[in-house]
This record gives sequence, structure tokens and C-alpha cells, in this order.
Amino acid sequence: MVLVLRSARILDTGRGSGDATQTVDILVDGMKIARIADHIDPPEDASVFDASRYLITPGFVNAHGHFAMTLLRGLADEVSLEVWLKQYMFPREALMNGDDVYYGSLLALAEGMMSGTTTFADMYFSEDDVARAVGEAGVRANLSTGTASLDNEHGKLQKSEEFVVRWNNKADGRIKASFGPHAPYTASPEFVQENFERARELGVIVQFHLHETRKEIEDFTAVHGTSPITYYAEQGFFDNPPRLLAAHCVHMTARDTEILREAGASIVLNIQSNLKLGSGIPDYRLLLGSGVNLCIGTDGAASNDNVDMLEELRVLGLVMKGSTQDAADISNTSLLAMGWSNGAKALGFEDVGTVSEGAAADLVLWDLDDESFCPQNNVASHLLWSANSRAVDSVMVAGSWVMENGQLLGIDLDKVRFEVARRARRLASG
Amino acid sequence: MVLVLRSARILDTGRGSGDATQTVDILVDGMKIARIADHIDPPEDASVFDASRYLITPGFVNAHGHFAMTLLRGLADEVSLEVWLKQYMFPREALMNGDDVYYGSLLALAEGMMSGTTTFADMYFSEDDVARAVGEAGVRANLSTGTASLDNEHGKLQKSEEFVVRWNNKADGRIKASFGPHAPYTASPEFVQENFERARELGVIVQFHLHETRKEIEDFTAVHGTSPITYYAEQGFFDNPPRLLAAHCVHMTARDTEILREAGASIVLNIQSNLKLGSGIPDYRLLLGSGVNLCIGTDGAASNDNVDMLEELRVLGLVMKGSTQDAADISNTSLLAMGWSNGAKALGFEDVGTVSEGAAADLVLWDLDDESFCPQNNVASHLLWSANSRAVDSVMVAGSWVMENGQLLGIDLDKVRFEVARRARRLASG
Repeated sequence: MVLVLRSARILDTGRGSGDATQTVDILVDGMKIARIADHIDPPEDASVFDASRYLITPGFVNAHGHFAMTLLRGLADEVSLEVWLKQYMFPREALMNGDDVYYGSLLALAEGMMSGTTTFADMYFSEDDVARAVGEAGVRANLSTGTASLDNEHGKLQKSEEFVVRWNNKADGRIKASFGPHAPYTASPEFVQENFERARELGVIVQFHLHETRKEIEDFTAVHGTSPITYYAEQGFFDNPPRLLAAHCVHMTARDTEILREAGASIVLNIQSNLKLGSGIPDYRLLLGSGVNLCIGTDGAASNDNVDMLEELRVLGLVMKGSTQDAADISNTSLLAMGWSNGAKALGFEDVGTVSEGAAADLVLWDLDDESFCPQNNVASHLLWSANSRAVDSVMVAGSWVMENGQLLGIDLDKVRFEVARRARRLASG
Repeated sequence: MVLVLRSARILDTGRGSGDATQTVDILVDGMKIARIADHIDPPEDASVFDASRYLITPGFVNAHGHFAMTLLRGLADEVSLEVWLKQYMFPREALMNGDDVYYGSLLALAEGMMSGTTTFADMYFSEDDVARAVGEAGVRANLSTGTASLDNEHGKLQKSEEFVVRWNNKADGRIKASFGPHAPYTASPEFVQENFERARELGVIVQFHLHETRKEIEDFTAVHGTSPITYYAEQGFFDNPPRLLAAHCVHMTARDTEILREAGASIVLNIQSNLKLGSGIPDYRLLLGSGVNLCIGTDGAASNDNVDMLEELRVLGLVMKGSTQDAADISNTSLLAMGWSNGAKALGFEDVGTVSEGAAADLVLWDLDDESFCPQNNVASHLLWSANSRAVDSVMVAGSWVMENGQLLGIDLDKVRFEVARRARRLASG
């Protein structure tokens, strides 16, 4: 597709915030943004799209989630992570089949796209069915098989690796694959180390839940004498580290944080899930000052309870300012960067998370006529603090529309809702 | 109007949560809910509305706000309350005329209705213009003239009182009026006391900002030796108290809280504004255990930055659970009660905040086909933690539709957006 987006207003953390008051033309050629200029004469084969009504931004990068947990939304609201996981999630996940995962994933992807996300991360099981959903939805994702293992029973590491080989860089590069040892409380240190080594050799990332609750750290310390991160470092897991995507990191010491910085890891903040499960509020002064690449994820919809990155950015920014009692602790630009380019970097997608020449044509069109943008004193501020998914009009990934005028193109939402509803009834009664 | 809402699913904190899975018929007669039953044969003059697609709830009660601050949305995101107020808000508010307040208020009311609110509180100036907006919008509101005063200069108390007499119980009882001494840092203790006395005599409430920031308490303590609430109590202001609506209450001691409980006051929590301005996070264990009537407000859109109560409930619930590190600290039912019946009680509206026989017919119809309610494991949970304003389909106040199928009936939204935009340009450049 060759397309000129005419008279667009771009908001991107790489541009000055004042730029969003200027209109420009954007030339999309194939999967890339070919050119941005005050005026572009459309090439002969190009279509022209009047974008004067829209604010154009990169798509959000949702750097941590479990798509198919949409099926388990709302099952337990007033319990801790441990109770939630062991009493409510694990028993029902044991009943899920591949098609359950496929339809649950499509619902999560739909919710994400409809709220301005173009790139996702997933850690679950039946991950081939997740990849099938991502392929059809038309978005980008980095997918991993979530693996709880003490001694690599049933060849779990090999199965993870086969998934990585089968799916990495497929679907025109929209799909990347990774390893997903679940967490320090479900995977033995030896199994974690083996995942790290295989990921490094294959050049893919490792998705890993780390330091989510006090209980995780207390239980681990009772056995190993120190926190998971510090223990892994002492055991040499980080001497030659893989590209680690550490999710949660609610309870961190300065030493834990420094270890992750030296290892070149990224931290995915999942504020709403951490708050809702009572896991706690991170020390944001420590994290913001650490130099670690910080990005943002929704976690699964059974603890969030939706797949809406704008909501996630807003709550994160608010709690940062409120918990440090300093409204200047995070700027609008830094917060948006966490949701866009920082996430893309963490998931290994080059040229994503920015609206600039040569970048991937992954774009969200926000309707500036929505009253959340009125009056237009500062559109970056209005996006972050006032708008919601109601204002998302259209979404493009890799130069193709995946949502137009509020309608998803690759997902039959009515069918997905029907299938999710009937499958959820089976799981809830199970 | 006589209307039967056919096959409705009701969610209300007075009913069992399981009730939302049953369908009932609701008879609206005039301004009231006349009857709720499994099946109602429509009276001869009644129209019948197929409500089978909707979840029907009370309208939210937004118990603290400054409507016309929509005009100032997004002007300053990274500053403290003091800087925000004195450097950004006060200078522009000094330029506002009555029509500015009128159009800014209409925008706030529109945003509120479109996100499921039927009853509002306001504290501002040119309050007659606010009352005009409320009358046209068709909603309920308790309105007060926000008054900063050291020695009742310019007869400010008398003007507040004249407003109260002019507007209390007008518009078929939809409008109530109250006193609004601004805050301990802008109103002298003597002026506060005079407001309390006049309100008690007239039987109306007092809206008052209290204990919002550490600086407020430190500055007050430097002069008076103790916190505002404790000082007012020691001076006898609460010996025969008015019905006090204390907004914010971020920084409270057990003694402060006990004084408010004994005085029969209500506390309005404004979590998003308090977080965004870096004012801090309340001690929720203290507040939840205090026995004070707790309700919820959005504050003004210049520090929130919208007028969306569902967002406010969600962030409040999340931060309660996260800051206490106990997911059970607040139940879905208690949180919804704060947004519905507790707020109605605080603002002095009887029979509001509940869907029951004899109650006011103030209803919100949420579209259960919205994907945020899929799968329907628990609609109360999905409303609180997953849905957003996209799912609000129709809104009724006092038996009349004020929004139908997403369209406001009493407000010309295009005109309001045009007027707010041009007036905001004037104010921003001023």
C-alpha cells in the first residue's frame, strides 16, 4: 500500500511537544513511513487519506500480558496474588484447550487494538494458538511459552525452544518468539539458568516475572539466603546475560536494580495488576533514577481487568506522582516514551514506537473531536490524562489498516465474544 | 412520563450481587421508580423500552468538582497544588466571565453524563451561570459559591447566602445550594465559622477543601498551633455542626478523623487530583475504619483531567488495595456504594443513588455487548475494573432521558466544544 495521510498532527516523544500543533503529510510506502513533510505530492499509485481530524501517534507497546486470561476476567477481585493464582487461575487454566486460548487471545488483542496498542507481549501456554490469533489480528507480538518447572520435566525447555524456532520473525517479522520461565516461585534456579543460556544462544529475549510480591522474596530468601535477582547474579546467571524482560519488579533494593541495569535488562511495570492484587507500590524514585529501560504492560485481564494501555499509563503516572509526593517526578514525555519506544526496544522490535521517516508504519489515529481533547490546550496532556479508548478511530500496523472507523478488520468481534462467553461458562463451572 | 423498562438487569449495592444475573421489569412513573417486579403489565399510557441489552445502575454521584475548570485542562501537569493554583489557575480564573463559566460547566456536565454520572457537586464563581447549565443539562447538582475571604470583605458571605436562597431546591428539586468557604489557606477561621453558622441555620451543607496537602497543614499549624480540623474543633466550630462535605482529606490523624465522624461530616476522596498534584496518598486503613461517610469526586478537569467517575472509582479502589498491600481492604460493593448512595447522602439528595421502588428514577444503561463485559463472569466486577465510558448508552434523571443512544438531549455538544475552544484560547493567551 502507498498512502498519503494528509494534514496529520503527530505526537511522538522524539519530536518537540509543540510539533503536535503543526500539520504535516505522512507518506506510507509498504510497511514503512517513507517520508514526513509539510506537503507531499502523492505518488501516482497512492491513495490519499484526510487526517486533519486526527492526532497520530505510535501504537502503544504492551510489554507484558497473558492474552487468554480474558476468559477468567472478574473471577476473584479481593484476594492476594497467591490465592488468586493457586485457587482461581491454575485450576481453570488446567481445563483450557487450544481453541479457548485462541479465542481468549483474540479478545485481548481486540481490546488492545481498540485502545491504541499495536505491539504486544504474551506469556502463556498453547502458544501456537496465540501466534495464530496474532497473525490474524495483524498486530506485532513477542510470544513466549510460560513454563513452570523444577527439573525440566517433560522436556519443557525443548518445547519452549521449538516454539521459538518455529515462530521467531514470522508473519513478515510481526511475530517474535522468546523464552518464558514463569517466576522464581515456580521455576528452579537451574531451569531459569538453562532458559537464559538458550535464549542468549538463539538471540531472543527472556520474559520472566520477578520480585512481584513480598512473599515471593521472603520465601525465596528463606531457601537461598537472598532475593531472586541477587541470588541469580551471585550464581553467575548474569555474567553473560540474555536480553531479559523482567515483569513487575515491585519490591526492589538498590542492589537488585543495579544488577538489572548492568545486565541490560528491561523492567515492565504492571501497576494496575500490582495494585489490584495488593502486591504493593514500587519505589519509583529508585526505578526512575536507576537507568534501567522502563516499559509498561497490562498483565492479564484477570487481574487488570482489561487490556487498555492508556489506562495503564495514566494510573502509573498518577501513582508515581502521588507516591513520591512530587508532581514533577515523571514528565508527560517520559511516560509516553515508556508506553511507546521503551517497550519496542524491550521486545526487540526495531523502528517501532516512533512516528518518523524509516520507522514502521504502526500508527494510531485519535479523534481530536472527542470532548476529552477539548479545549486543545496541550494534546499530549489530554491524551495522557483526559482521553480514553472512545477516541481511538483507526489503527495501522506495518502499513496496513487493522482497525478503521472503530471496526476491526482482522477479527470478527461478534464471533469472538460469542465463543469467549460460552467457553468462559464452561471454565467457570469447571 | 410512564415507562416500563422491560427485562432489565439491575446492579445496585442494596441488592445481592447475584441479582444482576436476573432480569426484571422497572416501572418509571413521573420522577420516581414506581415498581420493580419479574413482570409488569404496562399501564395504558406507558411506553415500553426493551432493556434486555443493558445493565441498569444508579447514576454516579460526583461529590466534589469545579465544572468550569474544563477550560483550563492541561495547562500544567508537573507542578504542586500551590504552584498550579497560584501561577496557573488563579490568574486565568480572574479573566473568566459568566458565559465562560456557563460553557465550561456544560462541557463538564456532558463529560460526566457520558460517563454515567447523574448528580454533581460544584464549588466555583459566577455560580448562577453554573445553575443555568445544570438546569439545561437536566441533571442534579449541589452548587456552592467558592469563597476565599479573610474578613468577609465585599459582603462575600451575604452573596453566598443570597445564592443559596435563590437556588436551593429549584428545578423540581434537582438543584440544591450550599456554602463554599474555599479552604483553610484562603479563608480565615472567623469566615469559616460564619459559613458554618449560616449553613446550619438554613439547613444546607458546607463544601470545604480540608487537609489536602502537607503544606496546608504545616502553614496552618505554624500560625494556629495545630491542624485546621483540630483547631476548628477546639474553637467550637463543631459544637453544633452544619452538614459538612470535606473534600480531599489526604493528610489526616486519627484525631482529625474522629472529629469529622462526631460532627457527622462526609469526606469526599479525590484520588486522581491528589495523585496528579503530588499531594499524596491517604491512610486508607484509617479512613475506611473511621465510620465517616466516604464518597468520591473528580475535582476539576484542570487537575484530573476529565469528569469521569468510573475512572475515579477504579483508581481509588486500586490505590486502596495497593497502598495497604491488602486486596481485601475494599470490596466491590463498598466501592460502588461510595460512588452511588454515599455521595447522594453527602449532597443531601434523598432517594438517590439506588435503583429501588420509591427511589428517584436516576438510571444509567450500560451496554452489556461492550467487550469490557465479556465474558460475563461478574458484571459488578466488570463495571468497576474493566468497562469505561464507551459502554454508557443512555442516562435518565428524575424520570426523563438526558442521554439516549450516546446522544445528549439537553446539551448541544458541538456548540459547547466550539465555545469552550474559543474561550480557552482567550484565557490561555491572557
